[in-house]
Amino acid sequence: MPHTPVWFMRQAGRSLPEYHKVREGIPMLESCVRPELVTEITLQPVRRHKVDAAVYFSDIVVPLRAIGIDLDIKPGVGPVVADPVRTRADLARLRDLTPEDVPYVTEAVGLLTRELGPTPLIGFAGAPFTLASYLVEGGPSRTYENAKAMMYGDPQLWADLLDRLADITAAFLKVQIEAGASAVQLFDSWAGALAPADYRHSAMPASAKVLEAVAGYGVPRIHFGVGTGELLRLMGEAGADVVGVDWRVPLDEAARRVGPGKALQGNLDPTVLFAGKEVVEAKTREVLDAAAGLEGHVFNLGHGVMPSTDPDALTRLAEFVHTETVR
Amino acid sequence: MPHTPVWFMRQAGRSLPEYHKVREGIPMLESCVRPELVTEITLQPVRRHKVDAAVYFSDIVVPLRAIGIDLDIKPGVGPVVADPVRTRADLARLRDLTPEDVPYVTEAVGLLTRELGPTPLIGFAGAPFTLASYLVEGGPSRTYENAKAMMYGDPQLWADLLDRLADITAAFLKVQIEAGASAVQLFDSWAGALAPADYRHSAMPASAKVLEAVAGYGVPRIHFGVGTGELLRLMGEAGADVVGVDWRVPLDEAARRVGPGKALQGNLDPTVLFAGKEVVEAKTREVLDAAAGLEGHVFNLGHGVMPSTDPDALTRLAEFVHTETVR
Repeated sequence: MPHTPVWFMRQAGRSLPEYHKVREGIPMLESCVRPELVTEITLQPVRRHKVDAAVYFSDIVVPLRAIGIDLDIKPGVGPVVADPVRTRADLARLRDLTPEDVPYVTEAVGLLTRELGPTPLIGFAGAPFTLASYLVEGGPSRTYENAKAMMYGDPQLWADLLDRLADITAAFLKVQIEAGASAVQLFDSWAGALAPADYRHSAMPASAKVLEAVAGYGVPRIHFGVGTGELLRLMGEAGADVVGVDWRVPLDEAARRVGPGKALQGNLDPTVLFAGKEVVEAKTREVLDAAAGLEGHVFNLGHGVMPSTDPDALTRLAEFVHTETVR
Repeated sequence: MPHTPVWFMRQAGRSLPEYHKVREGIPMLESCVRPELVTEITLQPVRRHKVDAAVYFSDIVVPLRAIGIDLDIKPGVGPVVADPVRTRADLARLRDLTPEDVPYVTEAVGLLTRELGPTPLIGFAGAPFTLASYLVEGGPSRTYENAKAMMYGDPQLWADLLDRLADITAAFLKVQIEAGASAVQLFDSWAGALAPADYRHSAMPASAKVLEAVAGYGVPRIHFGVGTGELLRLMGEAGADVVGVDWRVPLDEAARRVGPGKALQGNLDPTVLFAGKEVVEAKTREVLDAAAGLEGHVFNLGHGVMPSTDPDALTRLAEFVHTETVR
């Protein structure tokens, strides 16, 4: 590319008025299974912000719902699981995912790649640790105490749960790639809750299984979490081509931790977008300066776009990065 | 001491049945202004767990309430501020705190030091950044978007707000020290939301002012936050004698970041206590091993005791640390 590529986590949805318009009256998970709607929502930020990639609009719980787990996304709360996974018997509910479980994904990705032309489409899945946390807790948590109680207290059950989820996640990403996605991102939103030794032992093997399962396709694999400053090297070693970095670790320091051979993605603090243009530009320059020596850099926020972000600020930011990094 | 000292953040309250008994029908902030009740709650974990220090039972919003800010602690939610601080005019509401504003603190600390004898009492206050976050947001937040919008968008107002809070916090700690507290802890619960450059510029000066204001008393100053792996050196440089470390950074790595001349406090993952005795002991040994070469170590959890923790597990943990580290 002639400049540093830019895309935003959660660029589709939430902050866009045109998103709220097309979603009106349609529950979140319902919107994820309508191919035309997924296509429209995925394309909206590409049209508006001129970002360099589309991000497949979905939710991390979509593959779990697709295999029959009784869950829903409650507005203002997040994913809520009717019967949390707490015992070995509960694992039986986690059957394999096949392409027939998610025909809407195949269809939407097909529609999207035709619409997008040369613009890449990034496929998307939640990582096993984060999915397991939701399944065990039964919903969002600030402490993950039930998940960690299982992880520490019954490590074999925990490992078997994550291994099941690795197979499901890999299958879900394969559907997206085979339908035409040209990159994938594995979101381990909550991995930052783990100490490095616990991550290495109790989360990384399952993420590595997912990333290995899709390695043969040759598409770039992005691996992201929040609060993962201590885990960056391990998240790279799990099989990522691109390691996502939140705003807490400057990119030059992140590169030292990750080591050679990987690109980095990030890492403007999303709340910077609530300040004026000059502040956004100054902070963006700091990110670009820290990224100057990297082997590869995708500009992004350090976490998802906040719902109350002014869409125009995002458009200006994408343009600014393009202008500043033109080669 | 003949062994590594142990105390637990939030050891008083929440997890103890005797706490829930004495609090019955008494709102949280009401309980903080009754000297006999504060004394009883502060002593409960010392009696039960045989920890090496008492931690003054309070809440970070107590000094704000004491100067007349209209706020309350809503059960299941946290501190809620009736009129958030958003403008320069709002700063006028943050008047100085004097000992006459908190007579119950002087009285409770006096009662406590008499009861405790040689056992140290650790005083307690929230740091300016965390207090400012609550005041600007108006309540708990996962993103601190209003606080950070002010920090990035109106840095002079933000600096003035934190400077006001530094004076209030310093005065609140001085009351505790002058009444007999033998150490203080400055809790910057949410500092980990900041990138290092932002912490250095927009939070550290106010914390440094607080810690400097109490330096003359010669009592140990503990400085703690969560998710602060990238900030550990700066939190030490702010004027701490002891730097608190959450469970995400192994203590030997934390010592490298903090540098010489400081002790560390931490850092068992509080969720480990939901596992069995063998797991707790193995994970505790890992912490003690990582602490082996430190200049000073106070054993603690990496964050507060969780409300659903079995109190007996805490008692066993304190005893285990004492036994393992006997000199």
